[in-house]
Amino acid sequence: MTDWSEQTQQARNWFEELRNRICAEFESIEREAGSDAAFEYTDWQREEEGNTDPGGGTRAVMKGKVFEKVGVNVSTVRGNFAPEFAGTINGASADNPGFSATGISLVAHMANPHVPAVHMNTRFLTTQSAWFGGGADLNPPIPYAEDTEQFHARFRAACSAHNPTYYDRFKKWADEYFFIPHRGVHRGVGGIFYDHLECPDTAGFERNLAFTRDVGEAFLDIFPKLVRRRMAAEFTPQDKQAQLEWRGRYAEFNLVYDRGTLFGLKTGGNIDAILMSLPPEAVWS
Amino acid sequence: MTDWSEQTQQARNWFEELRNRICAEFESIEREAGSDAAFEYTDWQREEEGNTDPGGGTRAVMKGKVFEKVGVNVSTVRGNFAPEFAGTINGASADNPGFSATGISLVAHMANPHVPAVHMNTRFLTTQSAWFGGGADLNPPIPYAEDTEQFHARFRAACSAHNPTYYDRFKKWADEYFFIPHRGVHRGVGGIFYDHLECPDTAGFERNLAFTRDVGEAFLDIFPKLVRRRMAAEFTPQDKQAQLEWRGRYAEFNLVYDRGTLFGLKTGGNIDAILMSLPPEAVWS
Repeated sequence: MTDWSEQTQQARNWFEELRNRICAEFESIEREAGSDAAFEYTDWQREEEGNTDPGGGTRAVMKGKVFEKVGVNVSTVRGNFAPEFAGTINGASADNPGFSATGISLVAHMANPHVPAVHMNTRFLTTQSAWFGGGADLNPPIPYAEDTEQFHARFRAACSAHNPTYYDRFKKWADEYFFIPHRGVHRGVGGIFYDHLECPDTAGFERNLAFTRDVGEAFLDIFPKLVRRRMAAEFTPQDKQAQLEWRGRYAEFNLVYDRGTLFGLKTGGNIDAILMSLPPEAVWS
Repeated sequence: MTDWSEQTQQARNWFEELRNRICAEFESIEREAGSDAAFEYTDWQREEEGNTDPGGGTRAVMKGKVFEKVGVNVSTVRGNFAPEFAGTINGASADNPGFSATGISLVAHMANPHVPAVHMNTRFLTTQSAWFGGGADLNPPIPYAEDTEQFHARFRAACSAHNPTYYDRFKKWADEYFFIPHRGVHRGVGGIFYDHLECPDTAGFERNLAFTRDVGEAFLDIFPKLVRRRMAAEFTPQDKQAQLEWRGRYAEFNLVYDRGTLFGLKTGGNIDAILMSLPPEAVWS
């Protein structure tokens, strides 16, 4: 089994740098809207019996004028999966339950229903295998074809720079993953989703980290443009109501189906960080 | 295998009678508060491939002045469980996936945060076995010891009339069941929960139906008293906010853990009926 601790640190450094740049950019947007909202950072420690260094993370949350609620969590954890959970994870088993994971996870719920909500997450995991995963998807309560196209185009460009098959595969994966079976609807207008992007060796790690960095860069490039485009748009009480109902669907997806939520709950993650993705307010009619 | 169709009809008749009496009582409460709110009834048909008589149900929903949102669903369904689900159900298997189920399910979310929300559900299921299940639990955003005691006392009386062990067992079961592991908190102040109350023969059916009727009667006796006690109480915006946050926990429980939700989703139930339990509005801070 390769020792991936150096690579895990390298991935973690990138996730923290990306978090810092995203938070600075989102705070700039709040300034432009005349708000002095800022992220509040809270460290949390993971606990695992018999594990003296189980890791933890930092939850950053801002409640602003443009960003009704945005959370960015960076965590780096290590230890052993619970035996019954280990068998469900790539490269792990009840006999080999050891793992490490570092990642960034972001969900933004916007005040203005014309501005799309968004999710972005990238991560590096090691068990007996080592791999990257991640993705980003756009969740407009009121969809605009222009926004959807530009969001996809930017991720298509990021994917194509690394592998000609990535965009088609990862877009399709997002369409399949971000789907609410009991409603028979997609939770948003898609994006990309990838997992088990295996690192056979350190060169493979470098390649996959470079791609994962470009996914983060693509997000940081395109999402603020979409926010600035619509953050001052007028909206009606009916628009806001539609947004709140739409957020009910979003909460259903995250609580019933989302793998990241399950992973967090099963590995003793911080409950506030795991459920940070839930909307600030939702309605069910 | 006993033919339980006559007993299923008998249970169904009771559930529908109970629904009618509850809805009438809740509408009376609205009248007392000066509102003319009434239940709206929507029939729904279940679909199952190759099943010409899969059953269905009736969803009754009222949005009033006292009852911000209350849903009462009565459904009677029959068919075959999906093979991978059959093995998880008492008396069923991939080889014997046949089942029937009839039941009433009620969730009330109240406008005034001093008034407790409540859940009540009773049901009769048949596979190779036949059994009753059900329960009721009180979910006050702002708990009052007096309400909690009287709610429990009423169900204790209903239980004790049938079996001296029922209340202790079923109260404990509710404490275990209505618990949110990821938060480490109970979702409310408890009540009773029972399942697999087996009917070895028709005499056993009669005994268990009599108990299940008394659970319904207990609910109809005690809950309106608690509503009337507090429905005119003054509350602050902070009280309402506390209620909305508390409802976020309630939604988490129902979407992540609730067996009834899972049963409905896995057996092609009506999505609006299944998710009727979700609060009209919730917040996550």
